[in-house]
Amino acid sequence: MNNNFYTFSEYLKNDNKVLTPSMEDYVEMIYRMSIENQNNGIRVSDLSSALNVKPPSTTKMIKRLYELDICKYKKHEAIVLTKNGVNLGEYLLDRHNIVNFFLEKLGVEKTLFEQTEKIEHVINSETLECIKMYLQNNI
Amino acid sequence: MNNNFYTFSEYLKNDNKVLTPSMEDYVEMIYRMSIENQNNGIRVSDLSSALNVKPPSTTKMIKRLYELDICKYKKHEAIVLTKNGVNLGEYLLDRHNIVNFFLEKLGVEKTLFEQTEKIEHVINSETLECIKMYLQNNI
Repeated sequence: MNNNFYTFSEYLKNDNKVLTPSMEDYVEMIYRMSIENQNNGIRVSDLSSALNVKPPSTTKMIKRLYELDICKYKKHEAIVLTKNGVNLGEYLLDRHNIVNFFLEKLGVEKTLFEQTEKIEHVINSETLECIKMYLQNNI
Repeated sequence: MNNNFYTFSEYLKNDNKVLTPSMEDYVEMIYRMSIENQNNGIRVSDLSSALNVKPPSTTKMIKRLYELDICKYKKHEAIVLTKNGVNLGEYLLDRHNIVNFFLEKLGVEKTLFEQTEKIEHVINSETLECIKMYLQNNI
C-alpha cells in the first residue's frame, strides 16, 4: 500500500495535490456512476466508455487509485470506492458543480464545459470556499 | 522562422494555445519589465532573476520566443519584444491583473498569488470577457 494518500481531510489540507487532473476525473466519474447505480460497483468497460478512454488505460489508473486506497478492485470484479474514495468523489463532484454553476452565472456559455473542466482542477479549497460564499450571497 | 505563431489576434481566437504557461509567464514578465525600462531592452540576467530561473533556461526560452516572432534577440544583446510580442504581453499582463483583482474581490487572500498564477493560464477569452463584465458592473 502506497502511503502518499491517507485521508480525505489531508488531501484538502494539501494543496500540492497528490492526484493529477486525470486521476481526479476518474474519481469524480466513478463517484457519479456509483450514485447512479446505488453503489453496486462499476465495470471497467462502462467507466472507460463514460470517460471516452480505452479499457487498458482505465485498468492502469484503477491500479494507481487502489494503491492510494481510493478504490477496491480485483481483476474481473467491479470497482467500488473506499471510504476515502467516497469522500474524495463527493468533494470533486461538488467542486465540479460549483465551478460549473459559477461560470454559468458569470455568463460563460459557448465554452462552459471546457472551462469548467480546466478551472476545477486548479482551484484550491480557499478559492472554492470563496466561490461558495459568493453563490450563497447572490442567488 | 516557425509558422506556428503568426498574429496576436490568431492567438486569441485559438484557445488550443500555442504557448505553454511557462512561455506565457516569460512574455508577461518581459512586457512588464519593458514598460518599466521604457523599452530599452531586457538583459537575460535580469529576466532570469525576475523569474527566479537560471540564465541558460532563459536563453533557451528566448530562442523559442524568437522563432515564434514574439521577441528579437541576438547573443549578448538585449531582449526586445516584436509588435506581436507587445500585443501578447499587454494581453497577458492585463489578464493577470484582471484575474488577480477578481479573486481578491471574491475574498481569496492567503493563496491569492498562487491561485492567480494557476487560473490565469487556463481561462480563455470568453471567460475573461465575462469576468471583465462582472467587474465593470460591480465596482
